[in-house]
Amino acid sequence: MSLNTFGHLFRVTTWGESHGPALGATVDGCPPGIAVDEAALQRWLDLRKPGQNRFTTQRREPDAVRILSGVFDGRTTGTPVQLMIENTDQRSKDYSEIAEKFRPGHADITYFQKYGLRDYRGGGRSSARETAARVAAGGLARAVLAQLMPGLTIRGAMVQMGPRGIDRARYDAEEIARNPFWCPDAQAAADWAEYLDGLRKSGESVGAVIEVVAEGLPAGLGAPIYGKLDTELAAAMMSINAVKGVEIGDGMAAAALTGTENADEIFMGPDGPVYGSNHAGGILGGISTGQEVVVRFAVKPTSSILTPRRTITRDGTETEIVTKGRHDPCVGIRAVPVGEAMMACVLLDHLLLHRGQVGDAGGQIG
Amino acid sequence: MSLNTFGHLFRVTTWGESHGPALGATVDGCPPGIAVDEAALQRWLDLRKPGQNRFTTQRREPDAVRILSGVFDGRTTGTPVQLMIENTDQRSKDYSEIAEKFRPGHADITYFQKYGLRDYRGGGRSSARETAARVAAGGLARAVLAQLMPGLTIRGAMVQMGPRGIDRARYDAEEIARNPFWCPDAQAAADWAEYLDGLRKSGESVGAVIEVVAEGLPAGLGAPIYGKLDTELAAAMMSINAVKGVEIGDGMAAAALTGTENADEIFMGPDGPVYGSNHAGGILGGISTGQEVVVRFAVKPTSSILTPRRTITRDGTETEIVTKGRHDPCVGIRAVPVGEAMMACVLLDHLLLHRGQVGDAGGQIG
Amino acid sequence: MSLNTFGHLFRVTTWGESHGPALGATVDGCPPGIAVDEAALQRWLDLRKPGQNRFTTQRREPDAVRILSGVFDGRTTGTPVQLMIENTDQRSKDYSEIAEKFRPGHADITYFQKYGLRDYRGGGRSSARETAARVAAGGLARAVLAQLMPGLTIRGAMVQMGPRGIDRARYDAEEIARNPFWCPDAQAAADWAEYLDGLRKSGESVGAVIEVVAEGLPAGLGAPIYGKLDTELAAAMMSINAVKGVEIGDGMAAAALTGTENADEIFMGPDGPVYGSNHAGGILGGISTGQEVVVRFAVKPTSSILTPRRTITRDGTETEIVTKGRHDPCVGIRAVPVGEAMMACVLLDHLLLHRGQVGDAGGQIG
Amino acid sequence: MSLNTFGHLFRVTTWGESHGPALGATVDGCPPGIAVDEAALQRWLDLRKPGQNRFTTQRREPDAVRILSGVFDGRTTGTPVQLMIENTDQRSKDYSEIAEKFRPGHADITYFQKYGLRDYRGGGRSSARETAARVAAGGLARAVLAQLMPGLTIRGAMVQMGPRGIDRARYDAEEIARNPFWCPDAQAAADWAEYLDGLRKSGESVGAVIEVVAEGLPAGLGAPIYGKLDTELAAAMMSINAVKGVEIGDGMAAAALTGTENADEIFMGPDGPVYGSNHAGGILGGISTGQEVVVRFAVKPTSSILTPRRTITRDGTETEIVTKGRHDPCVGIRAVPVGEAMMACVLLDHLLLHRGQVGDAGGQIG
Repeated sequence: MSLNTFGHLFRVTTWGESHGPALGATVDGCPPGIAVDEAALQRWLDLRKPGQNRFTTQRREPDAVRILSGVFDGRTTGTPVQLMIENTDQRSKDYSEIAEKFRPGHADITYFQKYGLRDYRGGGRSSARETAARVAAGGLARAVLAQLMPGLTIRGAMVQMGPRGIDRARYDAEEIARNPFWCPDAQAAADWAEYLDGLRKSGESVGAVIEVVAEGLPAGLGAPIYGKLDTELAAAMMSINAVKGVEIGDGMAAAALTGTENADEIFMGPDGPVYGSNHAGGILGGISTGQEVVVRFAVKPTSSILTPRRTITRDGTETEIVTKGRHDPCVGIRAVPVGEAMMACVLLDHLLLHRGQVGDAGGQIG
Repeated sequence: MSLNTFGHLFRVTTWGESHGPALGATVDGCPPGIAVDEAALQRWLDLRKPGQNRFTTQRREPDAVRILSGVFDGRTTGTPVQLMIENTDQRSKDYSEIAEKFRPGHADITYFQKYGLRDYRGGGRSSARETAARVAAGGLARAVLAQLMPGLTIRGAMVQMGPRGIDRARYDAEEIARNPFWCPDAQAAADWAEYLDGLRKSGESVGAVIEVVAEGLPAGLGAPIYGKLDTELAAAMMSINAVKGVEIGDGMAAAALTGTENADEIFMGPDGPVYGSNHAGGILGGISTGQEVVVRFAVKPTSSILTPRRTITRDGTETEIVTKGRHDPCVGIRAVPVGEAMMACVLLDHLLLHRGQVGDAGGQIG
Repeated sequence: MSLNTFGHLFRVTTWGESHGPALGATVDGCPPGIAVDEAALQRWLDLRKPGQNRFTTQRREPDAVRILSGVFDGRTTGTPVQLMIENTDQRSKDYSEIAEKFRPGHADITYFQKYGLRDYRGGGRSSARETAARVAAGGLARAVLAQLMPGLTIRGAMVQMGPRGIDRARYDAEEIARNPFWCPDAQAAADWAEYLDGLRKSGESVGAVIEVVAEGLPAGLGAPIYGKLDTELAAAMMSINAVKGVEIGDGMAAAALTGTENADEIFMGPDGPVYGSNHAGGILGGISTGQEVVVRFAVKPTSSILTPRRTITRDGTETEIVTKGRHDPCVGIRAVPVGEAMMACVLLDHLLLHRGQVGDAGGQIG
Repeated sequence: MSLNTFGHLFRVTTWGESHGPALGATVDGCPPGIAVDEAALQRWLDLRKPGQNRFTTQRREPDAVRILSGVFDGRTTGTPVQLMIENTDQRSKDYSEIAEKFRPGHADITYFQKYGLRDYRGGGRSSARETAARVAAGGLARAVLAQLMPGLTIRGAMVQMGPRGIDRARYDAEEIARNPFWCPDAQAAADWAEYLDGLRKSGESVGAVIEVVAEGLPAGLGAPIYGKLDTELAAAMMSINAVKGVEIGDGMAAAALTGTENADEIFMGPDGPVYGSNHAGGILGGISTGQEVVVRFAVKPTSSILTPRRTITRDGTETEIVTKGRHDPCVGIRAVPVGEAMMACVLLDHLLLHRGQVGDAGGQIG
C-alpha cells in the first residue's frame, strides 16, 4: 500500500514539496457525473491560503488549482482527477543554515535519518504546504457529497488558542466566518487577536484546538472493526501536520465519566431514533448514529520561532538555531479548512464503501 | 481494501463473534524463520483474559490459542499464520431482551441500522472479546520484534481511572505487574481498588486512560504523509472498543504550549542525537526520533450498567433497559494488553515497510 | 497489501498448508443479509474434492467446510466469514526424501530460496490443496451473486487434454456433468478416458486447457485502468497452481487477426445492444459488454511423475528423484471448479466495486 | 483500493486522457537516494513515442516528461514522484461522429454504459496514450533497479505480427534495435515491413505477439499465493490496451506437454542451481528461479480501421462507422516498450516486497 494515499474507494494521493515546481492531489475513485470545475475547488483553497491577514505566514501564494484530468464537459468521468497547484512564491533565500542544522520540533532530523537526504527548502515534503492539496481534494469530495448526501454540512472551528478556550455558552456558528480565527465566540476572538499579536511580535508561537462537526449524515456509515468511522477520522486528523491528539465526542474527558453519565439515551423521533445527549460524538461501534459527528484535534505550536534553541548539525556538532522567515504564529488557524477537507474525504469514502459493501440492506427502525 | 484488516506488510485480519464457535486472527506477511509456538502467544492472552480477579468480567474463557498454519518445526514459514481461539463459555442465556432493545452506548443500534441484522449474543462482532484476537496477533508480532529489533520494550499502564490520575512522581514501572490495574503508582492502585469496588457493587462503571510506551526503537520508522507513525498508532488505538481519544506525547495539552516550551532541543550523545525533552512523544513529522514513543488513549466507561436507561426497540417503541450480566466495571483494565498488542503490530509493520521501501539508505549523524 | 488476499471489496484471504491441521478462507466484505449455510458451500467442495474417480489423486479428504463466523440465524451479518476445512488424511509418510531433494517443476526449490525453510509435507502451502479454500470462498460468492445478480451462470469446462482438444461443433453444456473431465464433448471425453488411463498407468501426467464462461452479467463491470475485468480475471486464473497462460475471448489467436475480422459489430436488440460476434470475450476496455465473458487458462502437467528426473539436494549435490505418492495424472481436471470459483469471486467483487464507485450513474442506450 | 494504481510498495497511479491538457504517473514508494533526472526518463519515452516511422500513428507528440516532485539535487527523496507529460498535438477535429457512435472493438460503448458519460476525444482515458505514463514510471523503476539489481536486463521484442512469427533459430537480440518492429529476426522484419505496408495502405490493421524477457534477477522474488510473480506479470500485461492473452514460459503450449517433457531438471552450477531447460519461464510456485523470466502477450489488431463496420448510436439507432484518423496499423509495435516498463515496475515492486517481508532470511543452496 502506498503511504501518500488515503481512502478506500475515494482515494487521494498527495504529492509535491513546499518549494518544488508544483504540488497536488491525484484523486482516484471519484464517482462519475458530478458537476465540478476549478472555481468550485478554488473557493476552498482561498479559505486556506496564506497571507490573508497578519496572523498567518506572509508567503504569497495564489494557490490556483488546475484540473488536469478526469473532468469533461464540466462533469467528472469516473477516471482519476489530477489537481495541480503551482508554487509561485519560492522566494530566493539562503537555505545553507537549515540545510546543515536540524530545527527542533521540525521533521528535519527524522527525514534525514529515514531517507538519507531531504529537500530542506521550506521543509520540503513535511511542510504544511502539503495541506493545500488536501483542501483541493476535499473540495472535490464536497462537490460529490453535495450530490450524494445533500443535507450534509461540515463546520470547522477553532475552540482553543493556547490555553484560552471559547465559552460554549457564546458559541455562534455565524461568528466563525467573521473573524480570522474561525472562532465561534466573538469575545474569545477579540481576546485571541490581542494575545496572538503579542506572541507574533515576540517571534513566539502557540498551539490550538480545532473542532470539526458534520451534521446531516445518515446512520450506518463506518466499517468496523478496522475501518471504523472514528478510527478513520482519527487517522485523517492525526496525519495533519503538527497534530498531537484527536478526540471523538467527549474524547479524553470520557475517561472521567461513569457509565450512567456517558450513556446517550435513545428516544423515538418523528423520523427515527433521537438521542438525549451526544457524548459519543455521533459514532457507536465505529458506525455513525445519525447525530452530529464531532471531532477535535490539538495542533502543537509552530516550531519556527525566534527564540534560540539548542540543536545539532548533520555532522553531529552541537549548535543553536533561530528560525527566521515567514511563519504562522498559530498554525492551527490554517488547520481549520484542512480538518474540514479531511472530514469531507472520509465521509465520502465511507458513503461509497457502504454503498458498495452493504447497498440498501441496512435496517429501518419503527 | 478489507476493513477487518490492519497493517501494510504485517497484515492482521481478525474474525469472529463473542458467542460464535471461535474467533481469531489471520496474519499475513509474517517474516519467515521466526521461532514461535502456542505457549509464546498464550502468555500474552493470559494477561488479557477475563475472570482473573473481581475487577473484570466473570466470564470464564481459557482463551487457548491454536496455531493452524504458517508455522513448521517451530518456525514461521512466511505463509499466513492462522490463530484460532475457541469460545467455550457461551453461557446459555436468554437474549430476547437485547435482541429487541438497543442498549445505549453499545453498537446494537448502529449495527442494525448498517447491516439490517446483528448477532445480538454478547454484542456479536462489536464485543470487546474481539480484542483477544489482537492480543494473539500482537504476541506473534512481539516474537518477530524480539528477533528483528531486540532492544525494544513495550510497556502499557493505566494512568487514570475515572477522574483519578496517577502521580507521575511515584511512577514505578516495576509496580505495574503487582496490581490488577496495570497501575505504575502503588498508592493510586490502592485508591482505585477501593473506588472500583464501590462502583462495581452499585452496578456502575467508569472510564480510564491507558498509556503505552515503546522504548528502544530506532529513529526512522514511519511513512509520511498518510502512514505516519503517529497516524497509524492513533488509528490502531482508536479502533479498540470504547476508545474516544488518542494522544501522542503531550497530546491535547500541546495546544496550550508556546513554541519555545514545546521544542525538544537536540544534543549530541555518544551514540547519536539525544533530546532535552520529549513533548513530541518520540515522533517528528510522523517518523520516530529514537526516543520513547508515547501514546495515550481514553476508554469510555462500560456501557453495560445496572442503572435503568431510556432506549427504544427495533420497532421504534420507547422503553427502558438495565444491562445485567457479567461485565467489566472498568473495561479500560483489559485494554492495557490490547494497547500493547496494537503497538507491537504497528511497530513491526513499520519496521518491515522501512526495510522494504528504504532499506539501508537512511542517514547517519555524526 | 497482503499477498495471500485477493479482491477489493469482497476480499478473500486463504491460509493453510497441505498437511497442517486445517486450511481455510477468511472472507471480508461479504454483504449482509445473504442466506447461506455450510451445505450450500459443501456442494461446491464436493465437486472439487479428490478421490472421486480413478483420474484424480487417491487422497481421501471429506473437505468438510465449517463456517466459524460471520453468519447468524442463517444469514451473513456483514462481518468476516471464516471458512475452515480440517485436513484429515495426512497419511503418515516418510518425507525425508523430499525434505532434502527439490522436485523439478514443483515450488520446493523456490520456497526454500525465498524463505529459508519450507513445510515439505505434500508441498506445504504450494500444494493444490490450497484451492479447496478458494472453492469454499467461491461458494460464498455464488450465494451472494444468486441474490444480487440472479440471472448469472458460471460454467467451467475442460476443452483440451494434453494435445487433444474438443470439437466445438459437438459442444454440449449438458455433457459437462456427465463425465469425470468436465468435458462438453462426449466423444472427446471417451477419448480422454482411454488416453489418461494410459498415462496414469505409466506414472506420467499431462496438461490441460480449462474454459470458464460467465453468462448473464450486465454491461459495465470492470474498473479501468488497473482493475480491468480482464486484468483481474487473468490474475485470478494465473494464481491457480500450475497455470501458465490465460486468454480472454480469442486470446493469443487475436494476434493473427486483422482489424476487420476482430471487430465485434454492434446491433440493437430488444433489450439493448447485441453483438455480431464475441472475439473480445465479453470485455471491451476492461469493462463487461453484457455478452458472455470467456476466459481460458492452460494448466501444465502435474510435476509429480514416476519418470526419474535430475535434481539437486539442499546442500547442492546432484541426484535424481522419482515422485511417488497419490497424484493427479491431469491436475487440470480439478482446476475446473477452482476456475469457476475464481470467476465468481472476481465478478462479485466487481459488482460491489461498481455499486460503490459508480452507483446508478451508468448510461442507458436507446 | 484505487483502480488506477498498480504495485504494492512501488505504486504507480496513472492519470490523464488522450486529449486533456496532460497525463502522467504519480509514483509513490520510490526508494530514496536514487540518481535520476528527466533525461533518464525521456530516453524510454522517446522509444515509445508515436510518429517515428510510417508504421505508427502520425500524431506528433514530443512526450516530454517533467518531474514535478520527489527528486531533489538529482536524487529521489523517498517522497512521491510526479511525472507529467503535456499533450500538445490535440489536433482540432470534429468529434461529433464518435461522440454519437460507438466504435466496434473500442471501449466507447462500455465506458458509456459504466459511467454514463465519456471523454470521446481520441478515446479519452481508454486511449493507448495512457501507456506513455507507464513508460515514464517504468523509466523510474529502471533507474532504481540499476542501483538495486545491477545485473538485470529487460528485453522486449515482437515475435509475431499477424499470423507471421519469427524463426527462433534466427533470434538475434542485437537486431531488435535495428528495425522499427523490435523484431529479433532480420528476415522476419523485412517481411513484416512489406506486409504492414500493404495493410496500412488499405486502412487495415493486424495483431501481434510481444515477448519480454528479464535476465539477471535473483531467485526468490514473488509473493505467493495471490502475489505470485507470474500472477502479477499476467495482470500487468493484461492491463495494457488491446492485450487478450498472456503466457509465462511455455504458456498455452504447456497444456500439450507431458510431465516428463515439462520438468525443468535441476543441476548444480558454480554459482548455484542451474536448469536443463526453461519451460517454466523462470517461475516456480510464483517465485523466480533465477533463470530468465519469459512473458508473452497477444495484442489484438487496432480497432480503428477504414473498413465500414456496423454499430449503433447512443440512442440505439443502428448505423455504420469508418474510423478515420491517425492510427497504428499494428499497435503491438508500440506495446513493446510498454511491456518492458511493466516488467520493470513489477520486478522492482517485488524486490522491495521481498526486502521488506523476508529480508535476508532466504536459503542458500550448496
